[in-house]
Amino acid sequence: MKYSQLFGRTRKSQKQYESKNQTLLQQAGFVDQVSAGVYAFLPLGLRVLNKISNIVREEMNAIGGQEVLLSALVPQELWEKTNRWNLDVAFKTELNNGGKFALGWSHEEVISTIAQQYIQSYKDLPFAPYQIQTKFRNEARAKSGIMRGREFLMKDMYSFHVDQTDLDAFYERAKDAYFRVFSRVGLGDRTFVTFASGGVFAKFSHEFQTLSDAGEDTIYLQRDKNIAINKEVLTDEVLAELGVRRDELEEVKAIEVGNIFKLGSRFSEGLDVKFLDEKGAQQFPVMGCYGIGPSRVMGTVVECLSDEKGMVWPKEIAPYAVHLIDIGEGARGQAEFVYESLKKRGVEVLWDDRDLRAGEKFADADLIGIPLRVVVSERNGKMLEVKERSEGEVRVIELEALSAFV
Amino acid sequence: MKYSQLFGRTRKSQKQYESKNQTLLQQAGFVDQVSAGVYAFLPLGLRVLNKISNIVREEMNAIGGQEVLLSALVPQELWEKTNRWNLDVAFKTELNNGGKFALGWSHEEVISTIAQQYIQSYKDLPFAPYQIQTKFRNEARAKSGIMRGREFLMKDMYSFHVDQTDLDAFYERAKDAYFRVFSRVGLGDRTFVTFASGGVFAKFSHEFQTLSDAGEDTIYLQRDKNIAINKEVLTDEVLAELGVRRDELEEVKAIEVGNIFKLGSRFSEGLDVKFLDEKGAQQFPVMGCYGIGPSRVMGTVVECLSDEKGMVWPKEIAPYAVHLIDIGEGARGQAEFVYESLKKRGVEVLWDDRDLRAGEKFADADLIGIPLRVVVSERNGKMLEVKERSEGEVRVIELEALSAFV
Repeated sequence: MKYSQLFGRTRKSQKQYESKNQTLLQQAGFVDQVSAGVYAFLPLGLRVLNKISNIVREEMNAIGGQEVLLSALVPQELWEKTNRWNLDVAFKTELNNGGKFALGWSHEEVISTIAQQYIQSYKDLPFAPYQIQTKFRNEARAKSGIMRGREFLMKDMYSFHVDQTDLDAFYERAKDAYFRVFSRVGLGDRTFVTFASGGVFAKFSHEFQTLSDAGEDTIYLQRDKNIAINKEVLTDEVLAELGVRRDELEEVKAIEVGNIFKLGSRFSEGLDVKFLDEKGAQQFPVMGCYGIGPSRVMGTVVECLSDEKGMVWPKEIAPYAVHLIDIGEGARGQAEFVYESLKKRGVEVLWDDRDLRAGEKFADADLIGIPLRVVVSERNGKMLEVKERSEGEVRVIELEALSAFV
Repeated sequence: MKYSQLFGRTRKSQKQYESKNQTLLQQAGFVDQVSAGVYAFLPLGLRVLNKISNIVREEMNAIGGQEVLLSALVPQELWEKTNRWNLDVAFKTELNNGGKFALGWSHEEVISTIAQQYIQSYKDLPFAPYQIQTKFRNEARAKSGIMRGREFLMKDMYSFHVDQTDLDAFYERAKDAYFRVFSRVGLGDRTFVTFASGGVFAKFSHEFQTLSDAGEDTIYLQRDKNIAINKEVLTDEVLAELGVRRDELEEVKAIEVGNIFKLGSRFSEGLDVKFLDEKGAQQFPVMGCYGIGPSRVMGTVVECLSDEKGMVWPKEIAPYAVHLIDIGEGARGQAEFVYESLKKRGVEVLWDDRDLRAGEKFADADLIGIPLRVVVSERNGKMLEVKERSEGEVRVIELEALSAFV
C-alpha cells in the first residue's frame, strides 16, 4: 500500500485523550471516534483487528469450536425466559409495528434456543459454537478508548456438555487456547489467569488479566505460585483454599482481556434445552461460556507495548510487516523496485511515498509501529537500511537478506 | 468436517415458509430464524456468506476500494445534519445517561465526517472506503427470508472525487466490478443493470436486478439492447431518452441485488466536507455510493439455482467442495482414507459419517447442495462414485482422478 493513497493517515494535531490507546490510535489514523465508546476502524486499524480476530478464530477452531454468526437484535421474549430483559447493560430498540429487542451484549439465550433444535440425545453432545461479532453495552463511562466500548467486537463461545466432567475437560482446553491467543498477540508474559467471581453459576470464574496501569481492575499476584486473585473474591476463605497468605500478595492494576465461565445448567434450564442420556432420562446439558474482545485486546497491546515515540506492534498482528521509506528524489526508483519485489514475495509492505523530509517520515513510522523499517536513500544506493521498531540498531543489508527479518 | 459433529444439521421437519430461501436454508441447517427478518447463520450458512463477502471484498479492492469498519451506533447529531433522523427505516436506541442513536442503515454521515479530516486538498482525492457490516432496517414486512432482513450484512462503499468527470469514470469501474461479483456467485446470466430513480441526487441510479419470480420489484427488459428499466421510472420521456419503445418491453419480476448511486455533493455539503482545488478555491467533493448485500445475494442464489431436491451451490460460494458419503460398514475405512487425503490436498470436504441408509444420505446431500458428491461403498472398493449436484451422470473414478472435478 502506498501511504499517499491510504485512507486514514497520521494526524499529530489530534488531542490527547484520557486513554493512551485512543490518543495513539487516532493520531496514527487507525481508528476514529464516532461517539464516546463508539469507534470506526480505518484501514490500518481494521488490519490489526482482523489479525487478532483470526488468531482467536484459529485457536477456537483448534479445540473444536465451530463458527456461527448470531443476531444483534435479540427479542424481548428470549431475555424474559432468563430474567435478563430488565438489565441496564442493554441498549433497547423496537419495531415501528410492535416488538422489542435488546441489542445483544451476550448470547446465551440465542445460542441455547438454536442448540435446542439440534440436541436430541447424548450422542449430539458436546459442541461449542462461537462467533466473532459486534456487541453493544449501555456503559455509563466510556473513557478507556477501544478497551471499553459501547460497541465493540467480541468472540463469544458457548459449550454444551452431557455432564460436569466433560465441561471441566473442555474448560481446561479452552484455558490453554486462551493462553495461546495472548501469547501470539504479544501479551503472554504479562497475562495471568485470575480467580474471579463465578456469579450465581459457580464458585469461581477465570479472568485473563493483563498487567497495566491503564487497567480498571485490581488483582493480587503471587508470582512464584503463578496465582492471581481478583480483589472482588479476596477473602480469607479463598486464600486458604488457594494456599496463599495475604502478606505474600502483590497488588497490581490489570486489564481484563478475557474471561471464561462455567454456567452449569442455568441457561439450559431457563431455555428448556434437554437431551436424553444413555438410560433414556431427560437431562439439561451443562454449559460453559468463553469471551475475548479482539478490540479490547488491540487496545491493551497499545497500552502495554507502546513507547514514547508511538506504537510497537508484534509481528503477528502488525498492520504491515515492512514500513518502506524513500529519502530523496534519486531513491524513488529503487524504492519502487523494493516495494514491488516485496509484494511479489507476499510480504505486506506499506510504502511512505510522500514527498516529505526524512525526519517526518521516521516520526510517522515510529508512531505507526510497523515491526521493520526499511529505508532506501541515494546515499546507500541499492543497499537497504533496516531497523526493527523495538530496537535501536540500524543495519545496512542487501534486498536478498531482508527475508531473514520478515 | 464430519457431519456427525456439525452444529446445524438437516431438519426435514422444518415447516414451509413463505419464501423458498428460508425454507431450504432452515431445512438444510444453514440459518435459523431468531425473529422475523432476523437470522443466525450456522456453520454451513456462514461459510457461504463469508465466501460471498470475500468475492465482494476482492472485487472492491481490485478497483482501489479500502476496507474500513464503521459503527452500527450512529448518533442523532450526525443524522440531523442531513435531515435523516426522522426516518421510519431506522431502529432508534438511547444511552441510559442520555444521547440517542439510530442503528446504521446507511453510513454517508459517518464516512463523510471521517473523510473530512483526511481531505485538505485535491491531492487527497479520490478515495473509496468500503465496509462489510451488519445493517439494520425497521422493515414493516420481513417475509422474504434472508433476502430482506431487519438485520443483514451489507457491503457499502462511498467514493469521493474532485469533480463529476472523476466520479463518472469510477462509477463505470464500480459497475464492472459489480458484474464480476454477480458472475462469480453464479447470477451473471440473469442479472441486469437497471435504470432506477436517482432520488434527489441524480436523474437515474442503477440497480442490479436478478430475474426471479420471488422478486419484489417489477422491471421492463429489452433483451436485444440489454436495457432494463425499473417500473418506477418507466415514463415516455425515459423511453425516448433510452431509445426503446414501450411495445418491445418484457415485464418481469426481479430481485434487487445491488445498487449504485451518484450522490453529487448532497452529503459533502450537508456535512461540510471541503477541499482546496488547484486554484486554492474551496470545493465540495462529489460522491458516489455502492451497495451490495451478501446475505441478500445468498438468498437470491437459493431462489434462482435450487431445484425440487434442494439447493445447488456454485463452486465459488459452496460451503464445501466435496460431499463425501460412505455406504455400509465395510466402506468406513476407505472413506476415512479419502477424507484425510482430500483434506491434505486442501480440498474442503464434508463427510457424512453417520450410520444412516444410503437414501437418507443422498437426500441430505441433494438438500445441502454441495457441488460434488463422492460415494465410497463396499461394492466399489477403492473406486469412487462421483456425481455433480447440477447433473445426473454418475461416474466411477479413482481417487487420483478426483482433482479434475474440484
